Amino acid sequence: MHTVTLGPEGTYSHRAARTVSDSVAFRPSVTAIVEAVADGSFDRGVVPIENSIEGSVTETLDALAARDVSIVREVVTPITHALLAQAEDFETVTSHSQALAQCRSFLADQYPDVARESVASTAAAVELAREDPSVAAIAHPSTAEQALRVLATEIQDRPSNETRFFVLGPESARSPAGGKTTIVIYPASNHPGLLYELLGPFEERGVNLTRIESRPSGKQLGDYRFHLDLEGGLYEPRIEAAVEAVEAVLDDGWVRWLGSYDVEHAVE
Amino acid sequence: MHTVTLGPEGTYSHRAARTVSDSVAFRPSVTAIVEAVADGSFDRGVVPIENSIEGSVTETLDALAARDVSIVREVVTPITHALLAQAEDFETVTSHSQALAQCRSFLADQYPDVARESVASTAAAVELAREDPSVAAIAHPSTAEQALRVLATEIQDRPSNETRFFVLGPESARSPAGGKTTIVIYPASNHPGLLYELLGPFEERGVNLTRIESRPSGKQLGDYRFHLDLEGGLYEPRIEAAVEAVEAVLDDGWVRWLGSYDVEHAVE
Repeated sequence: MHTVTLGPEGTYSHRAARTVSDSVAFRPSVTAIVEAVADGSFDRGVVPIENSIEGSVTETLDALAARDVSIVREVVTPITHALLAQAEDFETVTSHSQALAQCRSFLADQYPDVARESVASTAAAVELAREDPSVAAIAHPSTAEQALRVLATEIQDRPSNETRFFVLGPESARSPAGGKTTIVIYPASNHPGLLYELLGPFEERGVNLTRIESRPSGKQLGDYRFHLDLEGGLYEPRIEAAVEAVEAVLDDGWVRWLGSYDVEHAVE
Repeated sequence: MHTVTLGPEGTYSHRAARTVSDSVAFRPSVTAIVEAVADGSFDRGVVPIENSIEGSVTETLDALAARDVSIVREVVTPITHALLAQAEDFETVTSHSQALAQCRSFLADQYPDVARESVASTAAAVELAREDPSVAAIAHPSTAEQALRVLATEIQDRPSNETRFFVLGPESARSPAGGKTTIVIYPASNHPGLLYELLGPFEERGVNLTRIESRPSGKQLGDYRFHLDLEGGLYEPRIEAAVEAVEAVLDDGWVRWLGSYDVEHAVE
């Protein structure tokens, strides 16, 4: 099973991808990973979808709506951030923008005058800190190794910090089995009560929505796609009937089923 | 009227803030602006809330939910990105992360091998490009002046690119008058049909929701706050009754009214 995820080695995505297979390659962006799975270059892709502090990864939502891939599994991993540097007197803190955001309070309290710089990944930040004594990195503490000191651990704003990753496969890997289902709805219109109408079919069948996320369609302000996660697999008649009922409500819009899948909790 | 917004001079926020007053000061982050208005240092703050391509500005949503300020007006401005540099042979493109994201397709097509680096603002990117011939900036074309060449204009991914800004005031400036209303709901629970229940009071009264956005509460994955924009002011009995009906549905949760306000379209 050839798997692709966000590189370089040592990113949180890499940690999640190792639960899928030992053969892991890297791409620099979520969009590039989704494309590499859609065009058949890899069997599986692992992408972050949501963090318990920072919320949805919008690039992932947009890439999933744009390309034909399927969600085959969800992996939930704990995220533990540490501050790593060669010494205490650094001038810049660097990390992935989500990691910097997740540590906003710590940085404002402890290092109000230190510059922040976002780079492509936590692993890239560690590389910079290894090369430059004036740079500190935010990353998993295990990435410090010999070159860097761990100046502080558990520096994320709130104690519960977990990230959901989706394991993606080609369209042919899509399966109705599993405990969760993700669909994307584009209503192509807006009128009073529209969202209420879209949710009615789930309510009537007792289907729990675990997440709803709106994304701009790009056409104009106020025109959205909705990403919905449901509790239950499409193999269940009530889930299938609810999705069909939503389709029946839409005139010009569409519903896409991205997959049904089970959730795995990775141990740190 | 002392107004504070994202600096330095020449940012899109600065352009929006000039529609509010001529006396504009700068802070480096949305959170700092919201705090400066909450503690009375400034009469007004101007912060971006949503872009038609990139979607919500999550730092703004989180800051509005955390601090006691009010929304007194909305300003919608067109966003026009250009590529600015001293010469064609640059090695890095830099800009605010949202501007880089809004030009993702252009950069992937035209400059696939050029590094991208996000900085605090489009204006900071222009500064870097002025100092360093190996750096290009993405910013409004008017910021090029003599030092930089405009290498390409209208480079954002889709033709319609607008950003909504909120004009913030202290709590005492909150008013029920206006054509739109923003509220934040924290249900403090999740059960099948919860979101449907929350939307019912609006549906029953024919109130249009122009936007719904979920943000993680930070407690655990799957626990959210909802940010709702409604068409209508709280002075209207049907809007007030709908908000009260939502409050009545919640056991342990809460509803916060951030303000009612009118929308102004700024001309580029």
